[in-house]
Amino acid sequence: MTAKLIKNGTIVTAADTYTAEVLIKDGIIAKIGFDLDAEADEVIDASGKYVFPGGIDPHTHLEMPFGGTVTADDFATGTTAAAFGGTTSIVDFCLTTKGKPLSESIAAWHNKAKGKAVIDYGFHLMIGEINDEVLAELPSIVKDEGITSLKVFMAYKNVFQADDGTLFRTMLAAKELGAMVMVHAENGDVIEFLIQKALKEGHTDPIYHALTRPSVIEGEATGRAAKLAALAGARLYVVHVTCAEAVQQIAEARGQGVDVWGETCPQYLVLDQSYLAQPGFEGAKYVWSPPLREKSHQEVLWNALKSGQLQTIGSDHCSFNFNGQKDLGLGDFSKIPNGGPVIEDRFSLLYSEGVRKGRITLNQFVDIISTRNAKLFGLFPRKGTIAVGSDADIVIFDPEAQRLLSAETHHMNVDYNPFEGLLVTGVPVSVMSRGEFVIREQQFVGELGAGRYLKRAPYITASETAPDPKPKVKL
Amino acid sequence: MTAKLIKNGTIVTAADTYTAEVLIKDGIIAKIGFDLDAEADEVIDASGKYVFPGGIDPHTHLEMPFGGTVTADDFATGTTAAAFGGTTSIVDFCLTTKGKPLSESIAAWHNKAKGKAVIDYGFHLMIGEINDEVLAELPSIVKDEGITSLKVFMAYKNVFQADDGTLFRTMLAAKELGAMVMVHAENGDVIEFLIQKALKEGHTDPIYHALTRPSVIEGEATGRAAKLAALAGARLYVVHVTCAEAVQQIAEARGQGVDVWGETCPQYLVLDQSYLAQPGFEGAKYVWSPPLREKSHQEVLWNALKSGQLQTIGSDHCSFNFNGQKDLGLGDFSKIPNGGPVIEDRFSLLYSEGVRKGRITLNQFVDIISTRNAKLFGLFPRKGTIAVGSDADIVIFDPEAQRLLSAETHHMNVDYNPFEGLLVTGVPVSVMSRGEFVIREQQFVGELGAGRYLKRAPYITASETAPDPKPKVKL
Amino acid sequence: MTAKLIKNGTIVTAADTYTAEVLIKDGIIAKIGFDLDAEADEVIDASGKYVFPGGIDPHTHLEMPFGGTVTADDFATGTTAAAFGGTTSIVDFCLTTKGKPLSESIAAWHNKAKGKAVIDYGFHLMIGEINDEVLAELPSIVKDEGITSLKVFMAYKNVFQADDGTLFRTMLAAKELGAMVMVHAENGDVIEFLIQKALKEGHTDPIYHALTRPSVIEGEATGRAAKLAALAGARLYVVHVTCAEAVQQIAEARGQGVDVWGETCPQYLVLDQSYLAQPGFEGAKYVWSPPLREKSHQEVLWNALKSGQLQTIGSDHCSFNFNGQKDLGLGDFSKIPNGGPVIEDRFSLLYSEGVRKGRITLNQFVDIISTRNAKLFGLFPRKGTIAVGSDADIVIFDPEAQRLLSAETHHMNVDYNPFEGLLVTGVPVSVMSRGEFVIREQQFVGELGAGRYLKRAPYITASETAPDPKPKVKL
Amino acid sequence: MTAKLIKNGTIVTAADTYTAEVLIKDGIIAKIGFDLDAEADEVIDASGKYVFPGGIDPHTHLEMPFGGTVTADDFATGTTAAAFGGTTSIVDFCLTTKGKPLSESIAAWHNKAKGKAVIDYGFHLMIGEINDEVLAELPSIVKDEGITSLKVFMAYKNVFQADDGTLFRTMLAAKELGAMVMVHAENGDVIEFLIQKALKEGHTDPIYHALTRPSVIEGEATGRAAKLAALAGARLYVVHVTCAEAVQQIAEARGQGVDVWGETCPQYLVLDQSYLAQPGFEGAKYVWSPPLREKSHQEVLWNALKSGQLQTIGSDHCSFNFNGQKDLGLGDFSKIPNGGPVIEDRFSLLYSEGVRKGRITLNQFVDIISTRNAKLFGLFPRKGTIAVGSDADIVIFDPEAQRLLSAETHHMNVDYNPFEGLLVTGVPVSVMSRGEFVIREQQFVGELGAGRYLKRAPYITASETAPDPKPKVKL
Repeated sequence: MTAKLIKNGTIVTAADTYTAEVLIKDGIIAKIGFDLDAEADEVIDASGKYVFPGGIDPHTHLEMPFGGTVTADDFATGTTAAAFGGTTSIVDFCLTTKGKPLSESIAAWHNKAKGKAVIDYGFHLMIGEINDEVLAELPSIVKDEGITSLKVFMAYKNVFQADDGTLFRTMLAAKELGAMVMVHAENGDVIEFLIQKALKEGHTDPIYHALTRPSVIEGEATGRAAKLAALAGARLYVVHVTCAEAVQQIAEARGQGVDVWGETCPQYLVLDQSYLAQPGFEGAKYVWSPPLREKSHQEVLWNALKSGQLQTIGSDHCSFNFNGQKDLGLGDFSKIPNGGPVIEDRFSLLYSEGVRKGRITLNQFVDIISTRNAKLFGLFPRKGTIAVGSDADIVIFDPEAQRLLSAETHHMNVDYNPFEGLLVTGVPVSVMSRGEFVIREQQFVGELGAGRYLKRAPYITASETAPDPKPKVKL
Repeated sequence: MTAKLIKNGTIVTAADTYTAEVLIKDGIIAKIGFDLDAEADEVIDASGKYVFPGGIDPHTHLEMPFGGTVTADDFATGTTAAAFGGTTSIVDFCLTTKGKPLSESIAAWHNKAKGKAVIDYGFHLMIGEINDEVLAELPSIVKDEGITSLKVFMAYKNVFQADDGTLFRTMLAAKELGAMVMVHAENGDVIEFLIQKALKEGHTDPIYHALTRPSVIEGEATGRAAKLAALAGARLYVVHVTCAEAVQQIAEARGQGVDVWGETCPQYLVLDQSYLAQPGFEGAKYVWSPPLREKSHQEVLWNALKSGQLQTIGSDHCSFNFNGQKDLGLGDFSKIPNGGPVIEDRFSLLYSEGVRKGRITLNQFVDIISTRNAKLFGLFPRKGTIAVGSDADIVIFDPEAQRLLSAETHHMNVDYNPFEGLLVTGVPVSVMSRGEFVIREQQFVGELGAGRYLKRAPYITASETAPDPKPKVKL
Repeated sequence: MTAKLIKNGTIVTAADTYTAEVLIKDGIIAKIGFDLDAEADEVIDASGKYVFPGGIDPHTHLEMPFGGTVTADDFATGTTAAAFGGTTSIVDFCLTTKGKPLSESIAAWHNKAKGKAVIDYGFHLMIGEINDEVLAELPSIVKDEGITSLKVFMAYKNVFQADDGTLFRTMLAAKELGAMVMVHAENGDVIEFLIQKALKEGHTDPIYHALTRPSVIEGEATGRAAKLAALAGARLYVVHVTCAEAVQQIAEARGQGVDVWGETCPQYLVLDQSYLAQPGFEGAKYVWSPPLREKSHQEVLWNALKSGQLQTIGSDHCSFNFNGQKDLGLGDFSKIPNGGPVIEDRFSLLYSEGVRKGRITLNQFVDIISTRNAKLFGLFPRKGTIAVGSDADIVIFDPEAQRLLSAETHHMNVDYNPFEGLLVTGVPVSVMSRGEFVIREQQFVGELGAGRYLKRAPYITASETAPDPKPKVKL
Repeated sequence: MTAKLIKNGTIVTAADTYTAEVLIKDGIIAKIGFDLDAEADEVIDASGKYVFPGGIDPHTHLEMPFGGTVTADDFATGTTAAAFGGTTSIVDFCLTTKGKPLSESIAAWHNKAKGKAVIDYGFHLMIGEINDEVLAELPSIVKDEGITSLKVFMAYKNVFQADDGTLFRTMLAAKELGAMVMVHAENGDVIEFLIQKALKEGHTDPIYHALTRPSVIEGEATGRAAKLAALAGARLYVVHVTCAEAVQQIAEARGQGVDVWGETCPQYLVLDQSYLAQPGFEGAKYVWSPPLREKSHQEVLWNALKSGQLQTIGSDHCSFNFNGQKDLGLGDFSKIPNGGPVIEDRFSLLYSEGVRKGRITLNQFVDIISTRNAKLFGLFPRKGTIAVGSDADIVIFDPEAQRLLSAETHHMNVDYNPFEGLLVTGVPVSVMSRGEFVIREQQFVGELGAGRYLKRAPYITASETAPDPKPKVKL
């Protein structure tokens, strides 16, 4: 493997911003300094560019069955699009089925990824029930499979939804294993009734998707989960936080020392509920759960990222074609497959709307898009930073170039882009995974199947706090 | 100047923890990697040690006149003790006098430091009044002198205290110049009355220092300052936050997007009000303003550091001898000089009580003790990190060694230690300032006057967010 | 029926405190003024006494099956004890069974009361499920039966507990009918798990009843119910609020205009969790759900009554003999029947601990013990006040007399008193129901079966706000 | 004096709503009941009417010098207009001058009222400084003069404003005497600067009155006062609360048991900041301090009244003619006399906008407009209710009649009405003061000078809580 040198760029990590050369050997960052040309086989000029650690997307749904169809992107198209967008690792959600061994579901998920992923990937595991079989399987899943984050749904009544007892028991089991619990926090019981009521009243348009999932019950469920986590002493991660009510619950809990973390998504920062109310069926493109909110929530979410009340950004990538999939919900909003394509644009959106508009600092950007995810999900310091000994997952980013978001040009396998027409500033020019280019000068040069499965470490605070200074990373 | 190599240590920054070698040339970090021996004149083995960026103490009072006496440590003894403790930069408070040009006070402060400081130092400037003269002087003070933080006292009635109009006008002026406003947040009017009332009632013991400064009015003043900052659109830094009430105000304001930051001090995390109630005059050793609080506040402060509601730790080093200075207040608690010696133990206390007890992570430790201060006070990336191009201000730290805090052994020029008898884990073994050892194997090897004055940059969010990737640091 | 005149007493209502004579004719307050002797057949001297409206206890469980036994007091002993204590109306909980018509349960409850009650009584109705049959029955239950308050349990998993969908649908149905929804707010799923866990770990003592029902999940459930009520636009009444967390949720919701009300009970104001930890099985006497809390919650509850964040006091009277009933839980705290005898002492406890200790005003006392309950539960102005046209349900109360609470002397049909040995100041000397003495000079002079069933009005804000000044009450 | 009987009306108090006859003898309510014709000399038919206790306006400024002019209404026109509007008692603010004996100011105020007032009146006293003379005078002012409420201004820099030390000392002194402290809560220092800044920038229009007094600093000052009151253990009454920020501070403090109360005014409930932005100088009519706020605050204020977070309504009547007085501020908004005419319309506005629109109940209306003020200001039970023994201050109110608010028809001595053109529902038809008609069938039948000075009682909780049942009111 050739030794590469990235020169003249500005290296940015979650803490630092400085200019230096980065030498990469065997896929690992070997040296940072100056005058390193002699050690390199190949020199990449990054003049006028940022050199970022690759993005880590902690929330994707590739080739996932949902509502009678399957998400449009598989691990091939999905990870390719991710790489184009500056993301070099993803953690995908592995669904499970009640009554079936968890290991079967995991095996199935491995099969989806195998030979397809162009960047590295890990899995979260959905927990739909807790019983003796599940409890017996969990230790090896966490320790051997390296799946250290378990997701519980408080919504999707009669589909994924688990009751509070299951959530609480998952927390206790997770805590013991050093795993983190993730929740989709909405009150599914109430939503289910509101949906049936709306349909009964003849309300079938996409906007009713939003109207039947009011923000107050996302806040409710978020607070409920945080309180159970406090009681369990468990670490909690709330996925796709969308509203002021939920932010408030997370901030309060954190202030009381509860180990709770919050993720939001670009769509909640940039789009709003009015998109769902567009004429005809156009609103179906904007059907996420939780739904897009009134515009006033956006500022709350930005402030939460700035002040540290929320810590990460996931794409919640879950793509369905407008024609042929979203239209399952024509005449019945509740049948519109939930989700949208964001894996490719997450990175640029946060930079363009966040850093360029002065809402977050450049170092916060790196933390939110990459480092914090690596730390929370047991990938640090292998992933998530530019430091000697870490994987050379690197994005060379032109902060002045612009890009028009559009289905015409995007690489996601889906026929629309929810941010269609938005001009973003900042473009990932070249992207490396473990030292090899996947994207070079905006061209795909990667390889299907080159992505490796990531066994992740339990969160044990140890990973970050351990006073043990023995080398953890070796060349 | 010889090239030095630190080998085998675990480098820790605000973001990263990894093992590598650090090559230092010309007082600057030149290279990080492996196999760098050939480039070094001297190799320092850091096996089993942490390699931290040097601590930055944003809050000291050296050779400062107060209450008819002068603080016991000058820039010689104070910075020497700081270095022993792992601190490589301080920002000291320059007092001013109403009616006198600010430049005079600054000149006086330069004189105090000159030929004495063994580590680098900057100044904050007290603002006691706002008038045309002051407004005329400020631009050059900020831009030419590099004093980019202005302090206003809401307490010390008839001494330092400024009214809300002065505070607000300072905020507006500071904002325009990119300077930050710092406040001592207690309601001085109420305190003054409570003190007089206590004395009139014959209450003269040290404990009355605490009883006449209740936490509710620290919370009040903190909230007041935060609201004025919100209105002014200014950046606010609240020094020495001690209590739940103040933390709540800061957290609320930050959640609303207000640019407010909070500092606490080791004494508030480790000691409590009961120390003031000791028999005899012993309590005088523990007279700080704001005072030590009921023990229950400690957990709130720790949680605030953990969750990011508070961001920094200062020592508020302000030493007075128990015999000969503190005893000015024998028979009248209000005459006890306020303050205590902490400059040497700040670093170890936060590591031992914070990291080792699992309250904060190792990276948070570095952020709180160093990096965040560098960023907030315009010293970054020159100071506050271990990155190529930064000053080689470095602490080699043995995380397993232990040290008994005591006046017997400390290097501060004062006859008591408020943490007397506390055993801390973690010892700064060697400390470098710009690549030269000041402390080597726990021996002082520095030089009086080697410390340089630090002109600091305005905070302009630019410093952190600027999308401009042109090299900011050059070898 | 003879005309009676109460002379020389101080009349106290929720608003007023004044001295005058009260003339009673045909069981109704006919006239208030002076010099009314001529119109009376009988004169009662109330010199030095308060003349209060009779207490209304909104929360009792008489002859109720629970946990394999039946509460010790039936409508005869229960209402007799209530009368001794100054209570002249109760609203008892009618349990229902899933799958059975609600009307059957109501009929059964009428049978329990018939021929036994010595004071007037109404019923609340438990809702365990919502389906077409239930929805079909509700209108006549509200309008014809005058049962205008529906209770949903968020706890007692697998027994009474309903899910959030049922709660929300009950709210919507209730709102349409002008009925109020009451909740027992604790997270039953989590409690059930904690109980099983405790038992599995061999923890069987009464204190584990408290430890398996932490206050954080009462707060959680309270907030959840309040948010659903906000969404439904329904009126919510939270029974037996015990803790700071729940008070905070209610206060926040009320501040946002949500129509939510909170009740606490004397036991939570006066007793605390330490009672459950007494040696042996003694703690079983203090097993209520929610459980007694740490002492610090008491002040929060008192402040909430004082500031109006909580509005009523119920007894939650649910008596079980220590010998023969409570001991079902010997060796398994989860089998201890939940509840205790409070119906007789509610009135005196609130006066003695509240008014006499300066925590609430005399008028607040009347509001909390009587008037507010009459208003919330559709009994006003027939009950709950001393005003011309209202039922002459009156307590003549000696504010200086004292009474030792004790099973030796109480009139409840149960072998212990949880307040045993507590000396209260203030004694209901004589008590009238619709103008007839039930208690006279502390002797029972009432008649079994004299109590009448109370059809209650829907809450319709109208009842209180209606601008319609047409006479609502007629002699 | 003739005995009068009011028949067929619906009597409404802070607690009760019922139909009965009210017999009045010697200016006192002598009897309530039925069939009282024989005892009356004169019968007044109130069919279809409400019979309310007369309104109590706790906040007026009659014949008050301010900004180089004097308010347009004196005690003759002001109290006449008040009576037309249903108000039968006022408490007017007596201004004081630093360095002059308080008694002089009080004497001057007595002179203003003497021979003019048509209804009863009391005085609050402004405290501008605390020194030995003031402290020496206060006891007799409270006890002998019956002035039991002391007002401190936190705004009007260099005019009325007192510092926090003065406020705090006033609280301590007041507490000892059983007096209540009232505050005008705005940060005067900041306002003064913002005004000067606006003027310097050439902003002279009325809207700048609002823009230089942002709501955040009303919230700030309100919280500050509440915290000082908590510390002092004093009773605090915040006059003219206008905004969400201030309501939140009051609600929080009350929840913590602090003895703090809040008043708002009709103008803040009905008008908003846009009125100040009208073309030309029209906005000057709407210049109050604090200023009218953004419309969103109105709902917060209504919810606060409904939930009990705010407790009273004052008019803050402070009338200046548009022509000849308000125009002092032409070309300089800071010279516009602050205040407006509301004394006549306060009662109707609260009924029409509050009760008729379902925002508060009828009993709450009476409490807010009358009873609570009587209780807080030491006038209860003489004033503020319809109960035997109380003064017959009574309003006969037609809830269906309508009235167009207008300067054309109002009785205030001022050339405009801020509510011009607003149609209110509900008209005070006849108004009695101590049993004598002041207004009869909407005609003035009162007498200048008939109003009596009200010596008010200290608040001592005793007045409301006292367990002493000895007659307090005698015929």
